[in-house]
Amino acid sequence: MTQGTIEERLAALEARCQRAEDHLEILNLLNTYGPLVDSATAQPAGALWVDGGGYRFTLPDGDTKRLTAPDEIAGMYHWQGHLDLVNAGCAHLTATPRVSVHGDEAEAVGYSMVILKEGERWVLWRTAVNHWTLRRTEAGWRIVERYNRAVDGSEESHETMRKVQTI
Amino acid sequence: MTQGTIEERLAALEARCQRAEDHLEILNLLNTYGPLVDSATAQPAGALWVDGGGYRFTLPDGDTKRLTAPDEIAGMYHWQGHLDLVNAGCAHLTATPRVSVHGDEAEAVGYSMVILKEGERWVLWRTAVNHWTLRRTEAGWRIVERYNRAVDGSEESHETMRKVQTI
Amino acid sequence: MTQGTIEERLAALEARCQRAEDHLEILNLLNTYGPLVDSATAQPAGALWVDGGGYRFTLPDGDTKRLTAPDEIAGMYHWQGHLDLVNAGCAHLTATPRVSVHGDEAEAVGYSMVILKEGERWVLWRTAVNHWTLRRTEAGWRIVERYNRAVDGSEESHETMRKVQTI
Repeated sequence: MTQGTIEERLAALEARCQRAEDHLEILNLLNTYGPLVDSATAQPAGALWVDGGGYRFTLPDGDTKRLTAPDEIAGMYHWQGHLDLVNAGCAHLTATPRVSVHGDEAEAVGYSMVILKEGERWVLWRTAVNHWTLRRTEAGWRIVERYNRAVDGSEESHETMRKVQTI
Repeated sequence: MTQGTIEERLAALEARCQRAEDHLEILNLLNTYGPLVDSATAQPAGALWVDGGGYRFTLPDGDTKRLTAPDEIAGMYHWQGHLDLVNAGCAHLTATPRVSVHGDEAEAVGYSMVILKEGERWVLWRTAVNHWTLRRTEAGWRIVERYNRAVDGSEESHETMRKVQTI
Repeated sequence: MTQGTIEERLAALEARCQRAEDHLEILNLLNTYGPLVDSATAQPAGALWVDGGGYRFTLPDGDTKRLTAPDEIAGMYHWQGHLDLVNAGCAHLTATPRVSVHGDEAEAVGYSMVILKEGERWVLWRTAVNHWTLRRTEAGWRIVERYNRAVDGSEESHETMRKVQTI
């Protein structure tokens, strides 16, 4: 670590510092999602993605749907089904994922939950595993694609979990 | 990034490194809270705040209460209602929040849960959204104010969530 | 921070940068565990520990069991009881712990949960408090010992929580 010229050591430090900052900024980005969608703050939630980015998830019937950023994704947070959750009290939680930064691109794999108020308690309305690809933009890090699959014992869910080995 | 004199680059790196360290220290601080209060380790829990700092939360009847650090906050962890949770087995979890560091001050917005053992399972006894303000002290980062609102569909909860946009 | 020769400032920055990177790499390591074991990816899960490292946990009857890495730990993820969880859909979540890095050794204290799909919902099948010791190896950070105790109101669970003060 302490080898090299001053120029080499400064350049190495700048790159290492950037990578730690990127990791922390990505954690901030992913932890901004929940509070936005749980308060039906739709447009800013859609803007967490790059233009044309996507959110792909499985529907209860097993089909997969992909919504495009920003408008289709933002639009989902005004669907009646979503507003019913918001009005009852819900929390979309992003468990801290494994994050891998590679220059101006990054990937993350981790769990997410939707917690819903029901009577005097809260229940786990959904638990899912996610794979995100991310990109550095002039406005900061943004999501390129998010794939979300219910934790349901399916091969698709297990394949998504195993991506944690290769990101 | 690689522009500037050696002095300028060193100073920039020192500031950037400090900010990443601050972010990580704040995560450590907030993740110290749960294990302390769940083991009724009251005085150290109160000392996570600056002297005179506050913990404001809503009571079941909708009223808001503010306890002052360190004594009133520490005192709460010896209330019978709290000890009942501790004895049954509880975990106050701080979901990783969005953290913004601005010099010697910082803010964070994120979710928290109280998990309680009930029979052979655990239940979500409470889910809340939090806004913390924090300050660097000679002893490290401390909480100045924490506002905690149940995730219950209320306008107050949604307003707290939306602070994630402006911190 | 801005005192010292260029050499001293570079060396200080290199050490500080290393420590932040270590903290983030440990978060990545601990958040890799869940997706591996929840997809029965057994050998890589065992390899998160150093050779000869251990995973100690309490059994339902109160006894403590210690499995040795990598084979005994990996083997557990092929036990029928574990595969039943995997096939139903489970998520071993590591809540972000307090992490303390001391050179080539580190410690962490924090909560973990096992979430299980049951009907149309997910339940908290287990909630535990953990104390990890970790070590830097040539292959990166690895777990040396993990102690896991159910959050059940026991003195052992409270003692584990209180370690958050001394790590």
